[in-house]
Amino acid sequence: PLERDGQVIALPGAGAPFNPEWRLYARGSADDKAPIISMMTALDAIKAAGLKTKSNIKFAFEGEEEAGSVNLARTLAANKELFSGDLWLMCDGPVHQTRRPLIAFGARGAIRVDITVYGPRGELHSGHYGNWAPNPALSLARLLTSMKDESGRVLIEHFYDEVEPLSALEKRAVAEAPDIDGDLMKEFWLGGVDGGGKKLTELITLPSLNIRGMASSRIGAQASNVIPATASVTMDVRLVKGMDPQHTGERVIEHIRKQGFFVTDQEPSAQERMSHAKVARVVVGRPEAATRTSMDLPISQEVIRTVESVRGPAVKLPNMGGGLPLTSVERPLGTRTIVIPMGNHDNNQHSYNENLRLQNLWDGIELMAALLTM
Amino acid sequence: PLERDGQVIALPGAGAPFNPEWRLYARGSADDKAPIISMMTALDAIKAAGLKTKSNIKFAFEGEEEAGSVNLARTLAANKELFSGDLWLMCDGPVHQTRRPLIAFGARGAIRVDITVYGPRGELHSGHYGNWAPNPALSLARLLTSMKDESGRVLIEHFYDEVEPLSALEKRAVAEAPDIDGDLMKEFWLGGVDGGGKKLTELITLPSLNIRGMASSRIGAQASNVIPATASVTMDVRLVKGMDPQHTGERVIEHIRKQGFFVTDQEPSAQERMSHAKVARVVVGRPEAATRTSMDLPISQEVIRTVESVRGPAVKLPNMGGGLPLTSVERPLGTRTIVIPMGNHDNNQHSYNENLRLQNLWDGIELMAALLTM
Repeated sequence: PLERDGQVIALPGAGAPFNPEWRLYARGSADDKAPIISMMTALDAIKAAGLKTKSNIKFAFEGEEEAGSVNLARTLAANKELFSGDLWLMCDGPVHQTRRPLIAFGARGAIRVDITVYGPRGELHSGHYGNWAPNPALSLARLLTSMKDESGRVLIEHFYDEVEPLSALEKRAVAEAPDIDGDLMKEFWLGGVDGGGKKLTELITLPSLNIRGMASSRIGAQASNVIPATASVTMDVRLVKGMDPQHTGERVIEHIRKQGFFVTDQEPSAQERMSHAKVARVVVGRPEAATRTSMDLPISQEVIRTVESVRGPAVKLPNMGGGLPLTSVERPLGTRTIVIPMGNHDNNQHSYNENLRLQNLWDGIELMAALLTM
Repeated sequence: PLERDGQVIALPGAGAPFNPEWRLYARGSADDKAPIISMMTALDAIKAAGLKTKSNIKFAFEGEEEAGSVNLARTLAANKELFSGDLWLMCDGPVHQTRRPLIAFGARGAIRVDITVYGPRGELHSGHYGNWAPNPALSLARLLTSMKDESGRVLIEHFYDEVEPLSALEKRAVAEAPDIDGDLMKEFWLGGVDGGGKKLTELITLPSLNIRGMASSRIGAQASNVIPATASVTMDVRLVKGMDPQHTGERVIEHIRKQGFFVTDQEPSAQERMSHAKVARVVVGRPEAATRTSMDLPISQEVIRTVESVRGPAVKLPNMGGGLPLTSVERPLGTRTIVIPMGNHDNNQHSYNENLRLQNLWDGIELMAALLTM
């Protein structure tokens, strides 16, 4: 039983028999009804126990996260006093695949890069012009190959320069995180992985460069005997703490220039295409910076202690691999964020049959009660 | 006027005023009604002049060429005596872009190669798994890059081994062919070309390796933040005289193996994908061999002399860049083929507004009359 100042905080339904594997199937049951219900229920239980919270607690529920949180930063900036605080706890996402509690101290940022490489004005007959007219698909392949080595390390100059190294404590947390890589490889039918032997948990604390999709003319039954006119790729660069998204975008463009391309962000004109052997259109999307709240801060240590005191050893990640709109909170308010998810990892979030494992809801309420009285 | 044995062969409409630039617009007007009408009209004119042809002339009209000539070889093999001869003159295609007459002594062959490279079983979130799960699009890009150098030379081992070199006469013909590369570059908006400075006319006498199309996941507005599950390419290899299509297919596969891939021609199983870091499905299509009738043969020299005596200096190509079903004629009959086109190069063949330039029809009749009395 959870105790605070000698008082037991009674959780609703505590002691009632239920199968922990039962699931609540409902749209949004895990993402994000689970944390909202957990917070409210924990607050009721704290009040019912006659306790007072030690901190001044504020709740913020944002309804546009799945639509890009486009108004969040502006709203917080306009109401700074109302929303300010020492720390924002975010309860989005799932716990670790091993079912151990998860504390993520940040998220990777991202920039999107769209590249189109140009060949002949229109598709040309590959018999009449093959060997002579340059093939934009091969040119794009060569450009992409130049960006990473066989182990997956990015070869763009200065790409890693601004990466803020992990502290000793963060490194230890990464080393102690469960190694589930072998299981994931089986699940994904992979016979090998990138990263030169480093664990997934460590690799997501580093920036990445990824091809989201690639296209040139047509393949398979739709293919024609042509030299394509263009070849395009959509990529993403995942950023970590310290990296300036704008610098990174510029370094990608600089790398493309160094491979001999004339780079433009517009559809190149006939004149531009005739004046340069290699032409690329490069469009860098709206950047999202990374966040990482240091695990070494006293407040971070207190969060870790509280979580582990009620839920046992937690998996502690310096940052998640994916993105969350944490900068939209941190920047306008000058505060810090830590992510403490509640949902089960197999919750089918954003898909059919979304579900919340019943034990995860109970654990979440208990965890919230502990954090609110921290 | 065209004379033979002191007799003038009067062409129909000779002396009648017409603008040589007038065009006959009709489906198939150039491809292939022009040569059929030219042959028949020339034959009528020869008969009207009371001349006899010196050779035993046979006419063969095949109606399935645009549908792959799937019955041609079989029909010729079953009627060998009927169709046999010292030489087949094929009159398909357009004359040179400069309007000079064209004699092509062969065509390139082709094999098609479809490659799919495998990543994770399904698309993975590029934030959660980027840097760790291998990206099949990058793996394909690396494979394609390994196949050619910057100048367009194919790096597949033994790729050029079987190429039959051109004779001195053929080399001279290539050297004498008009250089229209600069004009074509403007027409196609190209700022550079492959081939290390060699002319298009020479480059089509060499084998080529070309990407017809490439695809992996989705790009642009359709792109998702994923690591794709597969990446595919459709390629063609253009072959020249001497190259065995089957050997070439095997060399492509051997090259892919040397890049570390487990190669299969079937959809790989989960077990195969988990047992190999790199897996590629490679399907080599039905091959079509190249042909090249030696320009040095007496019969080739006679054709050249005849064409040039009535139409002036011809552009003589050891082979065309594209394919024609010439092996379907040469193999079953043990004969030779030479291609002498008649249509204008801007005839919009296979497209809307197909047309035949009137002067090309008159030139074609005259040329045919000369060739039939050769």
